[in-house]
Amino acid sequence: MNTFGTLFRLTSFGESHGAAIGGVVDGMPPGIDIDVDFIQSELARRKPGQSRLTTARKESDQVEFLSGIFEGKSTGTPIGFIVRNENQHSTDYDDLRDVFRPSHADYTYFMKYGIRDHRGGGRSSARETIARVVAGALAKLVLRKIGIRITAWTQQVGNIACERDWTRLDLTLIETNDVRCPAPDAARRMEELIMEVKADGDTIGGVIAGVIEGCPAGLGEPVFGKLHAQLGSAMLSINAVKGFEYGDGFAMTEKRGSEVNDRPSSPPRGESERGLEFCSNHSGGIQGGISNGAPIPFRVAFKPVATLLRPQETVDIHGRAVTINPRGRHDPCVLPRAVPIVEAMAAITILDAWLCAAQIVNCKSSNSKL
Amino acid sequence: MNTFGTLFRLTSFGESHGAAIGGVVDGMPPGIDIDVDFIQSELARRKPGQSRLTTARKESDQVEFLSGIFEGKSTGTPIGFIVRNENQHSTDYDDLRDVFRPSHADYTYFMKYGIRDHRGGGRSSARETIARVVAGALAKLVLRKIGIRITAWTQQVGNIACERDWTRLDLTLIETNDVRCPAPDAARRMEELIMEVKADGDTIGGVIAGVIEGCPAGLGEPVFGKLHAQLGSAMLSINAVKGFEYGDGFAMTEKRGSEVNDRPSSPPRGESERGLEFCSNHSGGIQGGISNGAPIPFRVAFKPVATLLRPQETVDIHGRAVTINPRGRHDPCVLPRAVPIVEAMAAITILDAWLCAAQIVNCKSSNSKL
Amino acid sequence: MNTFGTLFRLTSFGESHGAAIGGVVDGMPPGIDIDVDFIQSELARRKPGQSRLTTARKESDQVEFLSGIFEGKSTGTPIGFIVRNENQHSTDYDDLRDVFRPSHADYTYFMKYGIRDHRGGGRSSARETIARVVAGALAKLVLRKIGIRITAWTQQVGNIACERDWTRLDLTLIETNDVRCPAPDAARRMEELIMEVKADGDTIGGVIAGVIEGCPAGLGEPVFGKLHAQLGSAMLSINAVKGFEYGDGFAMTEKRGSEVNDRPSSPPRGESERGLEFCSNHSGGIQGGISNGAPIPFRVAFKPVATLLRPQETVDIHGRAVTINPRGRHDPCVLPRAVPIVEAMAAITILDAWLCAAQIVNCKSSNSKL
Amino acid sequence: MNTFGTLFRLTSFGESHGAAIGGVVDGMPPGIDIDVDFIQSELARRKPGQSRLTTARKESDQVEFLSGIFEGKSTGTPIGFIVRNENQHSTDYDDLRDVFRPSHADYTYFMKYGIRDHRGGGRSSARETIARVVAGALAKLVLRKIGIRITAWTQQVGNIACERDWTRLDLTLIETNDVRCPAPDAARRMEELIMEVKADGDTIGGVIAGVIEGCPAGLGEPVFGKLHAQLGSAMLSINAVKGFEYGDGFAMTEKRGSEVNDRPSSPPRGESERGLEFCSNHSGGIQGGISNGAPIPFRVAFKPVATLLRPQETVDIHGRAVTINPRGRHDPCVLPRAVPIVEAMAAITILDAWLCAAQIVNCKSSNSKL
Repeated sequence: MNTFGTLFRLTSFGESHGAAIGGVVDGMPPGIDIDVDFIQSELARRKPGQSRLTTARKESDQVEFLSGIFEGKSTGTPIGFIVRNENQHSTDYDDLRDVFRPSHADYTYFMKYGIRDHRGGGRSSARETIARVVAGALAKLVLRKIGIRITAWTQQVGNIACERDWTRLDLTLIETNDVRCPAPDAARRMEELIMEVKADGDTIGGVIAGVIEGCPAGLGEPVFGKLHAQLGSAMLSINAVKGFEYGDGFAMTEKRGSEVNDRPSSPPRGESERGLEFCSNHSGGIQGGISNGAPIPFRVAFKPVATLLRPQETVDIHGRAVTINPRGRHDPCVLPRAVPIVEAMAAITILDAWLCAAQIVNCKSSNSKL
Repeated sequence: MNTFGTLFRLTSFGESHGAAIGGVVDGMPPGIDIDVDFIQSELARRKPGQSRLTTARKESDQVEFLSGIFEGKSTGTPIGFIVRNENQHSTDYDDLRDVFRPSHADYTYFMKYGIRDHRGGGRSSARETIARVVAGALAKLVLRKIGIRITAWTQQVGNIACERDWTRLDLTLIETNDVRCPAPDAARRMEELIMEVKADGDTIGGVIAGVIEGCPAGLGEPVFGKLHAQLGSAMLSINAVKGFEYGDGFAMTEKRGSEVNDRPSSPPRGESERGLEFCSNHSGGIQGGISNGAPIPFRVAFKPVATLLRPQETVDIHGRAVTINPRGRHDPCVLPRAVPIVEAMAAITILDAWLCAAQIVNCKSSNSKL
Repeated sequence: MNTFGTLFRLTSFGESHGAAIGGVVDGMPPGIDIDVDFIQSELARRKPGQSRLTTARKESDQVEFLSGIFEGKSTGTPIGFIVRNENQHSTDYDDLRDVFRPSHADYTYFMKYGIRDHRGGGRSSARETIARVVAGALAKLVLRKIGIRITAWTQQVGNIACERDWTRLDLTLIETNDVRCPAPDAARRMEELIMEVKADGDTIGGVIAGVIEGCPAGLGEPVFGKLHAQLGSAMLSINAVKGFEYGDGFAMTEKRGSEVNDRPSSPPRGESERGLEFCSNHSGGIQGGISNGAPIPFRVAFKPVATLLRPQETVDIHGRAVTINPRGRHDPCVLPRAVPIVEAMAAITILDAWLCAAQIVNCKSSNSKL
Repeated sequence: MNTFGTLFRLTSFGESHGAAIGGVVDGMPPGIDIDVDFIQSELARRKPGQSRLTTARKESDQVEFLSGIFEGKSTGTPIGFIVRNENQHSTDYDDLRDVFRPSHADYTYFMKYGIRDHRGGGRSSARETIARVVAGALAKLVLRKIGIRITAWTQQVGNIACERDWTRLDLTLIETNDVRCPAPDAARRMEELIMEVKADGDTIGGVIAGVIEGCPAGLGEPVFGKLHAQLGSAMLSINAVKGFEYGDGFAMTEKRGSEVNDRPSSPPRGESERGLEFCSNHSGGIQGGISNGAPIPFRVAFKPVATLLRPQETVDIHGRAVTINPRGRHDPCVLPRAVPIVEAMAAITILDAWLCAAQIVNCKSSNSKL
């Protein structure tokens, strides 16, 4: 369905060429200052037309909050919001009315629903992620108070990658370039590759890396709702994502236990109540599905955008061969704009886990009662 | 929590050294012949002690069904089942009562619950996956009738891998060797590596690959419940899993759209009602989160088992440094026994998606009414 | 939370004095003609100011659909909608900023959230039910095609009641009077009572009765999701509802089994595939939580509105005694306007149960496969 | 489905004539002493054969816990449990194999599932409530520590009722008689009525009343998950229940607002942090769906048992008229044995609401952070 989360929940709606994209955030803790400028700045990071690396389409992407906020603070009731669609060139898509584009959701939506909205991908458009960025920004407002920080960046575009070990990167540099890569040199080469691909009317994939810092120990459910399973589900729900790994991920498959076990370090006397620290973090901050207090690094694989600005052969709804040559305005590489989306889904997931853990924390803290 | 699925749901319970592992399968379609021998044979594939590659621990792992079956057929009511634990050497774990083992869930459970069951990992033990294998076997009984086949195999152990393209493998060879790899030569080398690692008291990671064949187009939810997000969540919930990818996965991050777009092939006259076929399957049988009718290949990364049969330094519950040297009986590599678990989780996920899609199929098929 | 339903789901948001009331309907079957005039006419039945029996407040209550509809038909994607609030006299409530009104949710919201929106009840206002009426109207558009009819009416106001046995009433008369009672004589006396109570600045309770006709056998879950438990939960979630009964309800508590058992009638030869009919319907169309094909009558108890237009003593947020004398514009009796709300919640519940049953229907109908 | 609750969840399974009734309680707070004698004593209150008022069937109803408990305390992991069925006379039901009994679920299960387990009602048997009583007893162990007490009693049998206002009853007398009515005189007449009805081979309905004391203010969700909607859903899910009301319930429908508004009393100086008290409690401790700290009284309507020990006409699966004359061993009145079931469902509901509220409580209490 179109709802994500257990106690902090986003229900999203909207098509790229309908009236609006919107959502409802249920479970927002009450009494939080709603910093609308911050939310708008997060949307700006996702917005089309923000640099030469992205589609030229222009949308103001102004969020309107409809409920759940009173005198600048959250009330605990659901926060409904909408972002009007403005720059819709629906006629750009008239040629595509009966066509199943290669590697798009046209055919699968048609098989599922027996009907389709051909304009710009309809519900399958990445424009849907606006709702996620708004909800993620609300989650970040809460996480900030708890001391949890979430950061994502472009770690790889095509075959150009920066350092994988995030502890060796200067994450303050992420927003200093259009591609959102914290390694300036790699960033420049990524930009060049994207411009080259764009000139070819082609597209290119890549990897977004992220890290969750300040997450307390004890979040996540031990069996089906493992914290990394929730995080993976969140990432895999983003358009164009083909893979997810956390900690050392796929690289651990080649290792021996003696190489990658994370040994707790003996804490200095009198500090044991601060929680354990670990000599290494191959596990990625989660053991048995539950956070251990260490940072949680993860990587998300994005395939290249399916819409090419060059002719492609395909078939139409009647099974006839056709050649398409989309005009439209499309991104040659989604990575730069997907960074805030990855952060948003991580923020939603972690706040939800934190709220779900709150009940047990609460039981334990009222130990005298229980 | 401990429930997985929407309309076909497994709720699991049980600790490795408690009385039993068990579960409840809710939403089993009625009227299905319950082939108990088949279910038991699936458990045998997961059982300890099945070959020299696995732990020497012996468990008969006999499932007892308690409800939901009448005269050999499912009734549609919940199927409760238990598997008694037999070969528990709880005293093997007495030394570990106060110890946080490296890369185990000991510390995180303690931080979450403020209490722990130190015997053999308690709830975090992979013995919990028995419930998944039983539920998966029930799901397979239904999928078999619909024509959906699920197959998994060991594709990599340490740095030894077989062919990644499953269409070039002979999947009938999987069960011909102890490591469950369909390439006999690679299988032999994997076995040698596992025996070598075992001799060192060490452990080794690897990759299990799988493929879902015969899945009709139209399964999966377009936004948060994308079919591959559900599948990824299912896989990431298995003990020791660190990553998931489907289709060309992480390899697609280096590609251009023109290289990996899947073009539908124009169907021969008069066969269009069979659904589209595609000239390639880089997407992995899913577009926009919904199945397109093509096979769904995926890969799952397993880290090496955390329990080593050699001394390791760690700390205890009081923060004191200790050295542990577990006796116990443990697997040097979980891959061979995890193959049926991966299949089980895939089966549960796909049957659930099929049942969720049934309502729309139903609406469409009763078009005259709707 | 603010979501109702399993496969047909309404998520609602909005406060009485915020920007808008709205909702998201997820799970709307695709391909349904969206008759906006019908939806608007349902809202008109709920609207304030429609007769002298209701509050004089004026709202146009115009619904704007934002997604999920394409070329006049549902697409299967979520339908987002909003109704702007217009006639807000928030200053009417300035005196109430720090006051806990008797039998209102002021105090309980404050205790739950530690914050409150004092303007007109905020989220606890019955204005929230607009979202339910829109979702219910969408559900009715589907139910109409399946042949399920839902009808509700005012059966009692204060101590004036009409016939309880719905089969003796002419339900076509419901909309012929302002109180929405199908018995013209009782209707007239109810109206008189409401006008008398209104003149006193007082309010009055009553009962809304309803019946679901054309519901096929087999809907509902046997244990916790019994069809009447879902229906009861739906009704008890409406503001001011204090009780729910179905079939003969509380009257059955005084009866013997031999008086109220519903005996199936032997069907005429050759008609058994039409399903059983019953000689009586004390059970109310549901046995063991599952519909039996007979009509489902039910009754819903409404307490009198808490806001009186006369002075009342209470306390403020500091525990100080205060006397309030609300101006505002309020209903002396909610029953006439609550009739469409009761119908809406019944429609949402039944469509959801029908969709949940579809998967089993589907399994059975594809028996050759299963 | 067969799961009830959000954070404290019972999944139940089992048929009356299968191997066992059982369940899984997920979300039990960790560290609670599991008093098995208390749980067994709750089962004894529900057990058949406990007095001449109930069926003569004998079951030891011994619960076996399989997981989630370590060294006498809950661990926070799911508690699986089973109660073996012992005294099954399945052959008593052979005559009923093809018969649809009047007012039973035989026909509706058959229509839903296309298959039936004819032995003693199968899943629709009230024997399923064993799982609820076990889960309710676990919930009571937690509620006891929080200071929440739940009490239920037989308030009416047929046309014999005791005082409705619970504050005028001596609830310590409930267990002093077989019918579980706190008014000894009414109890005696109820027992006489039940014996008379039993002698006739007939059955009789009644009302169970209950009250929740010590519930803090702030529990419940404001819109769809209103605390009384959850409670009503819980009660309506019990076999044979036809209606639910809370506070003054249906009696409020005849009242004016000025008669039933609950005015908060001005608290004595310096005690305001204890929360408000109210001059009356017509609302039944809940306003706007959220608890206000006052006791929560409610009433549940039970129809007479459908199985009569006298001949009844009905039809069989082929639509042929047949006369049935059940032997079996059945209760003439379920009320005495249903008292602990009502308490159990109330306990499960309130603990779940308390845990759901914990997250907000937690947010508020860590105000310095948030």
